[in-house]
Amino acid sequence: MTGVATARRSRITPEREAELYEAVLDLLREVGYDALTMDAVAARTRSSKATLYRQWGGKAELVAKAVRHNKPGGLGLGELDTGSLKGDLHALTLRSDDCQMEQNSALMRGLAMAIHGNPDLLRAFRDHLIEPEMAEFRRLLQRAIDRGEVRADNPALDYVMHMMIGGFAARTLIDEQPPTQAFLLSYIDAVVLPALGITTS
Amino acid sequence: MTGVATARRSRITPEREAELYEAVLDLLREVGYDALTMDAVAARTRSSKATLYRQWGGKAELVAKAVRHNKPGGLGLGELDTGSLKGDLHALTLRSDDCQMEQNSALMRGLAMAIHGNPDLLRAFRDHLIEPEMAEFRRLLQRAIDRGEVRADNPALDYVMHMMIGGFAARTLIDEQPPTQAFLLSYIDAVVLPALGITTS
Repeated sequence: MTGVATARRSRITPEREAELYEAVLDLLREVGYDALTMDAVAARTRSSKATLYRQWGGKAELVAKAVRHNKPGGLGLGELDTGSLKGDLHALTLRSDDCQMEQNSALMRGLAMAIHGNPDLLRAFRDHLIEPEMAEFRRLLQRAIDRGEVRADNPALDYVMHMMIGGFAARTLIDEQPPTQAFLLSYIDAVVLPALGITTS
Repeated sequence: MTGVATARRSRITPEREAELYEAVLDLLREVGYDALTMDAVAARTRSSKATLYRQWGGKAELVAKAVRHNKPGGLGLGELDTGSLKGDLHALTLRSDDCQMEQNSALMRGLAMAIHGNPDLLRAFRDHLIEPEMAEFRRLLQRAIDRGEVRADNPALDYVMHMMIGGFAARTLIDEQPPTQAFLLSYIDAVVLPALGITTS
């Protein structure tokens, strides 16, 4: 099976793959998920639909992987290791500049409705974005526990993703502003770290 | 001006107003904000469009007030006073049963996109829902400060709405479950209160 998977992947170069993902994100911003068709992706990228289906299986997986590709630094949270949880969460925030955060915020807003109406898309998002990101967060938090920064039985450990995603999402609605680095750094210091029992001053 | 406003309000009984709001919410769930027309509201409720415009000014204000009407207990946070912040936040959560929370969650998801595409709707939401709710939260938090439960300079005070809305919103995406009373009570104890410096056990 590994041989087959490798053979499939080798048909598309990383540059070509990046180009395809960019085109998918452009189309998503233009027409939204429901109106996005594999025909439009094929036409825009001058690919055959057969290639797209062979490589990605379907629209949901293609979109989830395009969104993942768009995340700065990919999902490499595991590579961050500054020696403190505060340092790690700040470094994570600083990987996206304000412009990228605003674009990402607009993209996710557009996809939020589609995710709830399309079980395939929800599944693809969980498999390719949420689960890997949660696993990386758990590693980062485990290091904080191992260092003695956070107690292993702190109940807020289960809600770190809720706090982070929530702060990001609530920012636009409450403050009429896109999330920025300054907002997120302040939110991490005021909310996320104290909830985990880490006092910052 | 007060006399004019009173005269306008008196044209519709509270029962009739409630009936109109229910019809608006039904239409919202059926067709969404963008496709909802004042014609459809007039037809569904056997009202004249002139009455609707006279009473509510326009679609955005009508929708925001219908959503506000739908909130259990209205915006009467100020009436809650259990003697502790934990008690107040728990009492607030317990006013909506799980079924109401799920309906509210679905409704807000459907409106999130529309809010960002319609400045009128964002403005109406801020005026009739977000600002009043934040003012009530500030009163509830001020009582906690006055009681000595929360320090007046705690930086998490600025983010209580972000934490609450965020937990609510992130629940569906991360856990594939609607927010429930049990989830929110646990989230308040694990995240909101500790971030404010209140330890619960």
